[in-house]
Amino acid sequence: MSIQVEVIAIGNELLKGITVNTNATEISQALFKTGYRSQYHTVIPDDKDLIIKQLHLSLQRSKIVIATGGLGPTCDDITKQIAAEVFDSPLILNDALANELTERYGNLPISLIDQATVPEKAILLSNPLGTSPGFVFNTELGVLILLPGVPKEMRRMLQEEMIPYLKKNFPISNPPLSQSVHLFNLGESSVDPLLRKLETEYPQVEFGIYPSPGLISIYATINQVDSSSEKLLTAITERIKQQFNDHFYSNRSEKIEETIQQLFIDRGWTLATAESCTGGAIAARIVRNAGASQYFLGGIVAYANHLKEKLLHVDKHMIDTDGAVSEETVREMALGVLNATGSEFSIAVSGITGPTGGTDKHPVGTVWIAIAKKGGEIRFHKLQGAYGNREMIIERSVNVALGTLYRYASCC
Amino acid sequence: MSIQVEVIAIGNELLKGITVNTNATEISQALFKTGYRSQYHTVIPDDKDLIIKQLHLSLQRSKIVIATGGLGPTCDDITKQIAAEVFDSPLILNDALANELTERYGNLPISLIDQATVPEKAILLSNPLGTSPGFVFNTELGVLILLPGVPKEMRRMLQEEMIPYLKKNFPISNPPLSQSVHLFNLGESSVDPLLRKLETEYPQVEFGIYPSPGLISIYATINQVDSSSEKLLTAITERIKQQFNDHFYSNRSEKIEETIQQLFIDRGWTLATAESCTGGAIAARIVRNAGASQYFLGGIVAYANHLKEKLLHVDKHMIDTDGAVSEETVREMALGVLNATGSEFSIAVSGITGPTGGTDKHPVGTVWIAIAKKGGEIRFHKLQGAYGNREMIIERSVNVALGTLYRYASCC
Repeated sequence: MSIQVEVIAIGNELLKGITVNTNATEISQALFKTGYRSQYHTVIPDDKDLIIKQLHLSLQRSKIVIATGGLGPTCDDITKQIAAEVFDSPLILNDALANELTERYGNLPISLIDQATVPEKAILLSNPLGTSPGFVFNTELGVLILLPGVPKEMRRMLQEEMIPYLKKNFPISNPPLSQSVHLFNLGESSVDPLLRKLETEYPQVEFGIYPSPGLISIYATINQVDSSSEKLLTAITERIKQQFNDHFYSNRSEKIEETIQQLFIDRGWTLATAESCTGGAIAARIVRNAGASQYFLGGIVAYANHLKEKLLHVDKHMIDTDGAVSEETVREMALGVLNATGSEFSIAVSGITGPTGGTDKHPVGTVWIAIAKKGGEIRFHKLQGAYGNREMIIERSVNVALGTLYRYASCC
Repeated sequence: MSIQVEVIAIGNELLKGITVNTNATEISQALFKTGYRSQYHTVIPDDKDLIIKQLHLSLQRSKIVIATGGLGPTCDDITKQIAAEVFDSPLILNDALANELTERYGNLPISLIDQATVPEKAILLSNPLGTSPGFVFNTELGVLILLPGVPKEMRRMLQEEMIPYLKKNFPISNPPLSQSVHLFNLGESSVDPLLRKLETEYPQVEFGIYPSPGLISIYATINQVDSSSEKLLTAITERIKQQFNDHFYSNRSEKIEETIQQLFIDRGWTLATAESCTGGAIAARIVRNAGASQYFLGGIVAYANHLKEKLLHVDKHMIDTDGAVSEETVREMALGVLNATGSEFSIAVSGITGPTGGTDKHPVGTVWIAIAKKGGEIRFHKLQGAYGNREMIIERSVNVALGTLYRYASCC
């Protein structure tokens, strides 16, 4: 069984929209992977009454409460004092901590003596990256863990101190098990009928669908794990994979560029891009992945038509007759960039991303994709339908182009 | 006086640490800029009992409750049904909405008929980017606004529908007044001393700093507005602008590509890019803005060194002696792409984005930028220091390259 945990972040900057609460995400991810479950994230202001109210509410509804922020040396950092009050614990100077801070920072100003003054009832979590330790209160009132708000300090303490502490003191007998399937060029509504069916067939399995433009990730999770769970999850994800085989790209990562990079490095192939409407977004996505230089050569962004002619040798006459958004144009672009770069594979994309520029023949959302292989055939895909705005049409084009490349290259 | 609002996000993916709750941040930012104040963010799972419990708690403690997520067409989307239950409202098929969805998506599958079935008591907020409208419940129980969880759908609805609705129906008697200054290539710690000084000088002004890699936006807000407020804000933002004049790019929009597009269209200039380590991300950013085709021609992504030679005519000998990350290489790249595309201006970038590939001479985070003008001088900028991971180094390079272009071009 899993243990219910909740995460509180304290800080006005989060509620003004200045800072994103990435701490809660990182903590929840670390908990999830270790078998614990976050059931709430809460953000509250640096306000004594609201903090006290929230701590009482959270300690009453969750077995373990983790709070970040408000441990620093300035006057608006009040979390430690309030927690000590809630747990009815005196604050005392910790000599060992005072010595450590003196060694690191020299003679202690008043603010660092404050930092070395800690609740008597709390266990300390060490913080070599900052001035405040973390704290664990574990009494009949409940379990409260305080972590720093600075992401770098929090991250280290989470991984090196908090997770080991939880594993030792709150072991999970039987952590949940998850498997995933990642698909491209498929809508939520296409996947939904199968998932509804699977949910009825396997009430012990929990399904999560995570869509983004052009991609969809499905997670199947069993919370009450037994000896047959892994086999069952494999059978279920295999069934999803088989039903949508033409759309499948990974069982491991939603990052399609990661899957492609692995495939191309394994095969020793190279890749180049010729982009019009996506304007470099395909190349940028590929390069975002560390190690892309092992297979990605580069590409040409031919946004203006005269560059399609000059840099990719697309026939001017053809652009004039067929238009820049056509099977013929992306074919020439794909071949042109193979030729210009000497790559093994190429991707070419041309389309109408809007909001203006659409015609009756080529409405906004029409995007032609071509995938070429040196000495091989050329595959085409045409996207249609204005799903969302310009940015989403570009993102969808990037994802479907990479998916189409994957399907072609993985079968070579 | 300000009105207290709280934001709930519904979704297991947030609690599993798969997705970061950027929606709450964006909503709070929009609220803050309009004069409303968020006092809580809460994330809860797709669980009927917990959603009901949270809605009751939130409606009781906050004047306006905004909830995101769970409005999609799949079986784990249950927010609309639960809100209808809490507000004791029947669900009825909305013919106008059904017709609109039919026009956009063709014949409606069962899941889209579900999407057109809406709570009778709710006002609808239109969603041209997705299948589900937003909903406003406003009864004696309180005010509950439901927005989609997909960030792009949420963002549009927030700006175009929700904020105007709040302004009209819950006007803030004396709305706060804000002005902004947008700067590039400047750290928070450089701006901080001036802002602290201004805060002491003008206690009636509240400052918000919104940093992203390579950019920083400063908002000055007066909550108790009187007849002198506008003039005071103008004086303050002008003072910030003057102190950081070399870093200034806009008083209106944080989108630096918007500022550049306006400038280039006004002057009738064209632009091209030559990218190595950013891998197309500069071109992709430029093209994300509608209307970019009026000035942006395209570019070359020369990720592999042999493409720097072949496509941009960078001297092989020079790459071998000076290395691909050098003033000399970006100079040649900038001139090479001016020549290849016939553009008026060009941007060239080459650097080490990591995590591997750094050397003693060129550690990770070293990025050279060159801006060339046809027949004019070439400007250089060198970035140093590994602020964050690969993705952040790329984003910082894009922003500083665009900022450097802006400073050069705006003075021509």
